[in-house]
Amino acid sequence: MPIDSNKILVDSIKRLLRRGATSHLAKIVNKTHGADLSVLFRSLSLAQQRKLFDMITDVEQKGILFSELEEDIFQDLIEDMPIEGIVEILENMPADDVADIIGRLPEGKSQDILDKMKKAESEEVEDLLRYDDDTAGGIMVPDFISLKEDVTAREAIESLQKEHSDVEMAFYLYVVDEYGKLVGVSSLRQLVVVPPETPLKEFMSTDVFSVKTDMDQEEVARIVARYDILAVPVVDDSNQLVGVVTVDDVIDILRKEATEDILKMAGAGEEFVETKSIFKSTRIRLPWLFASCVGGIFAFFIIGKFESSILKYAYLAAFIPVIMGMGGNIGTQSSTIVVRGLATGRLNVRDIWSVVLKELSIGVILGLVYGALIGSVAQLRYSMEALAISVALAVVSSMSVAALVGSLVPMAFARINIDPAVATGPFVTTAIDIISVFFYFKIATTLLGI
Amino acid sequence: MPIDSNKILVDSIKRLLRRGATSHLAKIVNKTHGADLSVLFRSLSLAQQRKLFDMITDVEQKGILFSELEEDIFQDLIEDMPIEGIVEILENMPADDVADIIGRLPEGKSQDILDKMKKAESEEVEDLLRYDDDTAGGIMVPDFISLKEDVTAREAIESLQKEHSDVEMAFYLYVVDEYGKLVGVSSLRQLVVVPPETPLKEFMSTDVFSVKTDMDQEEVARIVARYDILAVPVVDDSNQLVGVVTVDDVIDILRKEATEDILKMAGAGEEFVETKSIFKSTRIRLPWLFASCVGGIFAFFIIGKFESSILKYAYLAAFIPVIMGMGGNIGTQSSTIVVRGLATGRLNVRDIWSVVLKELSIGVILGLVYGALIGSVAQLRYSMEALAISVALAVVSSMSVAALVGSLVPMAFARINIDPAVATGPFVTTAIDIISVFFYFKIATTLLGI
Repeated sequence: MPIDSNKILVDSIKRLLRRGATSHLAKIVNKTHGADLSVLFRSLSLAQQRKLFDMITDVEQKGILFSELEEDIFQDLIEDMPIEGIVEILENMPADDVADIIGRLPEGKSQDILDKMKKAESEEVEDLLRYDDDTAGGIMVPDFISLKEDVTAREAIESLQKEHSDVEMAFYLYVVDEYGKLVGVSSLRQLVVVPPETPLKEFMSTDVFSVKTDMDQEEVARIVARYDILAVPVVDDSNQLVGVVTVDDVIDILRKEATEDILKMAGAGEEFVETKSIFKSTRIRLPWLFASCVGGIFAFFIIGKFESSILKYAYLAAFIPVIMGMGGNIGTQSSTIVVRGLATGRLNVRDIWSVVLKELSIGVILGLVYGALIGSVAQLRYSMEALAISVALAVVSSMSVAALVGSLVPMAFARINIDPAVATGPFVTTAIDIISVFFYFKIATTLLGI
Repeated sequence: MPIDSNKILVDSIKRLLRRGATSHLAKIVNKTHGADLSVLFRSLSLAQQRKLFDMITDVEQKGILFSELEEDIFQDLIEDMPIEGIVEILENMPADDVADIIGRLPEGKSQDILDKMKKAESEEVEDLLRYDDDTAGGIMVPDFISLKEDVTAREAIESLQKEHSDVEMAFYLYVVDEYGKLVGVSSLRQLVVVPPETPLKEFMSTDVFSVKTDMDQEEVARIVARYDILAVPVVDDSNQLVGVVTVDDVIDILRKEATEDILKMAGAGEEFVETKSIFKSTRIRLPWLFASCVGGIFAFFIIGKFESSILKYAYLAAFIPVIMGMGGNIGTQSSTIVVRGLATGRLNVRDIWSVVLKELSIGVILGLVYGALIGSVAQLRYSMEALAISVALAVVSSMSVAALVGSLVPMAFARINIDPAVATGPFVTTAIDIISVFFYFKIATTLLGI
């Protein structure tokens, strides 16, 4: 269903709920994809959500909805549900999604659920829970197809028919040696294209990418994106194949990563919270603004020091916004380019000096252009050379420093393994504000001799 | 190869180039993935790039490199290459990538190349060129596997072996009726799992997502991401199957989209340009700063109007940075949440009033908190109630207006189909700066009676 039609879906579901048209509702709910239902659920009350949820007949459909729902909504929804009902749904979901859900539940509840699950499945889930959430081990599925090198294409197809019917998104068949170590890969495609009696080792590709269980999930996502592969095998320290990360999870990681970076840089938290309450949103955004508040108060004390100069020349104050604005905006440009460049792999943290030098050059050039322009306006308005030159120099220095700080801070943070996005937003802007204001008054009072 | 090892690759290639160790170089180059070579090429001179390129023996490897290279580097690289050489490489690439490349070449050159290509392939490419670059038609591959409903699983496998060996990333088999209209889909997996004589119509899934050729590529990407599918079929106006968009292209689109949004919001152009020259980067960033320059000059004239007040009370000037900063930062938070929310589908453009109202509420609450805090600092410093109250009120109004403008502008732009990201960055910040400064002086001069 195209996304445009979501509005229509929400509206008609609400209408049917009002009318109590149960059988009609059940029909729609069972025909709608879990991803669309999860969007719909955001617009409904808890009671309405429960009503619709109970109408879903297919347990796998319930599972898809479980993994698509936002955390808040999910927790409320399962609050009063009998453990047996939850377990039945979880048992029909891929183990990685189950581990995700279990990992977020309160300790007591998650233990109850694991106890009630079939042994084989709860063990799979517990295996996954051993790995950090945001590593290859935490996002992999432990179901995959692996066969020995001398198995033939025909035998491989037979084993697909018999044994591996529950593997999620199977597009590759992994080949392991007698010790379970990964040695090659074949696509399902190749399997049907070669003569049936060909052993795997004769047509498998030995050029197989793999990642270690402890690799950061964003790194895994970048590898999958970079080499256009659909799944990447995950191996443990002894190179034994233990799982597979599939492309659908990679897409989610890349999107989440981009959202996080954008929000962090704007000082708006890490996760998307628009659907949360006003109170929660306020609480998340409050501390970030504190940085800019402290910085502003700092700038206020700096300007206070130049009070006597302002009393003589009030127009000095009139240039504060333009100088702060120019510095702030070019600083944002620089830090954004660096943060996004690092995230997408276009910039490398080891090139710190060439990147910073380049940004500084751009800052100086743009500073000269806009310094001349704004200085000219000052001259036209007040006809005082010393003032015009002060303003021009202040713009040059503010923009140069901003480009320098805006690129250096995220680069340096990335180098010492602090997330450059979180370190960038309000902190850089605030630092630039303070430096700009200080330079401006220092230059102006010197040149004007006050 | 893990991304970490890129530095090692770059360094050893450069060393080998210096030593002229040709056979060693050729070995490495032919073992390295095209995606890694494209990164390596950024660090090399044109002469070095050509040398390495000529060492690649596999024409498909050359093709992968072609599609991975950045536009600038690619254009320089093929400048002096004989047309026949280029054509040979293009003929071994997927048609969608060829269309991408051809679409970016100068008219004369692209015509030459199309003339020299095999008729079947150039027709495919020309078909693709008819569609807009950023629509489903522009990004689809015209090669796919489609069979009639009554073909059996065994016949389908045979046809895979004989006819469809050149299909890029085949994981689904599409089922069409006698008029070529899409009616179902089967995975390759299902094909080998069912009894060989079962006709497709008995096990195909009829619940098949498809998109129209003119659907925007970002919309296509969102659908693929949302429903966790690996490829989405593209149909023309008469529902005839004409191509397939694969997940690897979707990942590229989603990443590019996020990068564009981030850069646009920061006023740093649309495409990532860090690898371009200082001059080019400067030229791209110059106009965006002009908005903030004009805004700053505007603020300067506003403050000029209050010159006599500042001459009396110089400390009025000291609060300009904190008031501008608080407004600017909360405005950035609001517009970032809205732009990203719209891009990821978490916010819907039809909810404009509820979103704006919520942002405004948050702005008022945070404004009251920080207004009280900053007002108290003013009171402690100057012991003048009227001043402290003016500052507090100015913070409240600045932050409320900023949250309102920061959410309303992108929402409104999205509603009239203007990209909210491009409209947001410097424009919103600048507007907020001007409004904040004006409100502040208006409130202060009124309350202080000057």
